[in-house]
Amino acid sequence: MTEPIYLDYNATTPIAPQVFDAMAPFLRAHFGNPSSSHPYGRRAADAVQQARNELAALLGAQSEEIVFTGCATEANNLALRGVARALRHKGRHLIVSAVEHPSVQAPAERLRAEGWEVTVLPVDECGRVAPQQLAAALRSDTVLVSVMHANNEVGTLQPIGELSRLAHAAGVLFHTDAAQSIGKVAVDVHELGVDLLTLAGHKCYAPKGVGALYVRRGTPLDPVLVGAGQEHGLRPGTENVPHIVALGAAARLATARLPQATAQLRSLRDALHGQLQAAIPGLQLNGHPDERLPNTLNISFPGVSGRDLLARAPQIAASVGSACHEEGDAVSGVLAAMGVDAARARGAVRLSLGLASTEGEITAAGHALIEAWLARH
Amino acid sequence: MTEPIYLDYNATTPIAPQVFDAMAPFLRAHFGNPSSSHPYGRRAADAVQQARNELAALLGAQSEEIVFTGCATEANNLALRGVARALRHKGRHLIVSAVEHPSVQAPAERLRAEGWEVTVLPVDECGRVAPQQLAAALRSDTVLVSVMHANNEVGTLQPIGELSRLAHAAGVLFHTDAAQSIGKVAVDVHELGVDLLTLAGHKCYAPKGVGALYVRRGTPLDPVLVGAGQEHGLRPGTENVPHIVALGAAARLATARLPQATAQLRSLRDALHGQLQAAIPGLQLNGHPDERLPNTLNISFPGVSGRDLLARAPQIAASVGSACHEEGDAVSGVLAAMGVDAARARGAVRLSLGLASTEGEITAAGHALIEAWLARH
Repeated sequence: MTEPIYLDYNATTPIAPQVFDAMAPFLRAHFGNPSSSHPYGRRAADAVQQARNELAALLGAQSEEIVFTGCATEANNLALRGVARALRHKGRHLIVSAVEHPSVQAPAERLRAEGWEVTVLPVDECGRVAPQQLAAALRSDTVLVSVMHANNEVGTLQPIGELSRLAHAAGVLFHTDAAQSIGKVAVDVHELGVDLLTLAGHKCYAPKGVGALYVRRGTPLDPVLVGAGQEHGLRPGTENVPHIVALGAAARLATARLPQATAQLRSLRDALHGQLQAAIPGLQLNGHPDERLPNTLNISFPGVSGRDLLARAPQIAASVGSACHEEGDAVSGVLAAMGVDAARARGAVRLSLGLASTEGEITAAGHALIEAWLARH
Repeated sequence: MTEPIYLDYNATTPIAPQVFDAMAPFLRAHFGNPSSSHPYGRRAADAVQQARNELAALLGAQSEEIVFTGCATEANNLALRGVARALRHKGRHLIVSAVEHPSVQAPAERLRAEGWEVTVLPVDECGRVAPQQLAAALRSDTVLVSVMHANNEVGTLQPIGELSRLAHAAGVLFHTDAAQSIGKVAVDVHELGVDLLTLAGHKCYAPKGVGALYVRRGTPLDPVLVGAGQEHGLRPGTENVPHIVALGAAARLATARLPQATAQLRSLRDALHGQLQAAIPGLQLNGHPDERLPNTLNISFPGVSGRDLLARAPQIAASVGSACHEEGDAVSGVLAAMGVDAARARGAVRLSLGLASTEGEITAAGHALIEAWLARH
């Protein structure tokens, strides 16, 4: 059996061959513990430092501003709960958007259970937060705003620069979850104006099991996990050296590929959209028409459930929304927050492309989806 | 330059070739997100399930009792803080030993800062906790006892079976950090009688960046990190599939190798000890003479600092204690808790052997240490 055409890059990416080649020696010969002072340890520590430099370079950050974590979920927990703990004497108010990933929502909910107030900013029909909504929500006891850079389901990009300026004008820290945007569009912490930024290895051609948090120098932050002193005391536990090396290599690759990667993804994605639009009357785009990840196409097929449609197109590996929600049949919280009605939400399919996607794959995938839709009755 | 002889297996182990071979396909072709319902995802989910079965088999557990984490530090945080949170209405008293790893000590300290009482059980001159000390410390408001299975610095094995029986008789849960004992001695959760047990991939020939917590069915436990629903909601974040597969393969390997591995390690370790004793009058063993990990030799060289001695024996890669403490010059907290005097503690060196250690390496290492000691002035 041939492999299905993979159109679920927002769920996870394959590891780039260059990334595998960079990490492989650290799964074999170079196995030292970076905390050991002998040559095995120093070699591992040097590799971690190099990866830190590479990731910092991609983000326009300083290497000491990078904290490696076990995943983006851990980085989001560290950002929200770490700032909350460090600044709990300043105030107990937090602002997040209505379309955050569960790994931001759940820490916010835990803080709420611990007595914090959490304001959830609404989004418009394209999934965007309005800056004036943030301006109205900021208070003297607000300690943090967390708004994702790009949404995982619909790809909508938030006006982070504008939002972070508003937060800073009010003396409030700003975090963004950039797990979905890294490697797809330029991500520069100074242009975005953020104090904290989360990323995930497995969304940008590095392995699952590694993430990072950018922490602007001087940002008050307490650790969430506690133990020995690794990662400036902010993330204890022996470093995942091979995966950290991989993340560094993926960052190097992303730096080299951008902005061509953006153009390549957008061109293929728009071709697929055009192919589907030409054949399927009433197809609707979910997410912002322009301010959107170049690889993401979330579309609602009329008169059918997205799940059934994908079941009839086994040549394609895609999803109806976030992988984290695969099990449930409930309507996507993201689409609901955008005010998408139930019938349209039911027909939604997320097609997310990657740097290994080819024109041939995309055309074949378009055909398969059209066939599946035509056979819907 | 030839590589130094590696005698720091307690800091970290190399990845076994069989383990690398098992994980490599999940770094290449099989890259799916286990939460995805398409074939890429299902293949990843199946592999995670198989690893869960393999790890459970090693421990004598059920596969649904295994929670994969990003490292042993995270598992220890989950055990201590997860039980504390789940049982905070029962009481706020916790018992740990004086020789725990920082990843148990620090969560206990954080709980103390949050208003918990923490009793620290002393150890004898061999590093053992006396069961009667635990019996005396148990209270009606005690919610958890955490005593490590084997100490990372001196290798002393604790009488976990006896200690857990005492805890259970008082209605108290029992956790053990078995990061150092897995693969070196038999570890069976029912023989040990524990409710929670921590392990680390990189101490048993799997990679750094993966750990696990055994959670006996029915044990009350809240997550520490929060997000989506992976790992029964106890450890959110996309699973580190390659490392989890590796940990499963390492568990299969450990199951196959034990008890021969124990005998092989002990034989080489004791040969090294004998060689050093014969040449160095006044050499002192730290840790229990018998109830000790078969691979660990923590010895104090007379009239010299362990650090200086190792600096004069660059043919060997070993350490003076835990890798987590490498940076500091302070006396080991473990040796201090055992009542080892300052001069003896200063002369301590930890030699820890592994399954790749050879007789030739051990003899050469012994010679190098003797030479370095003889040249001490």
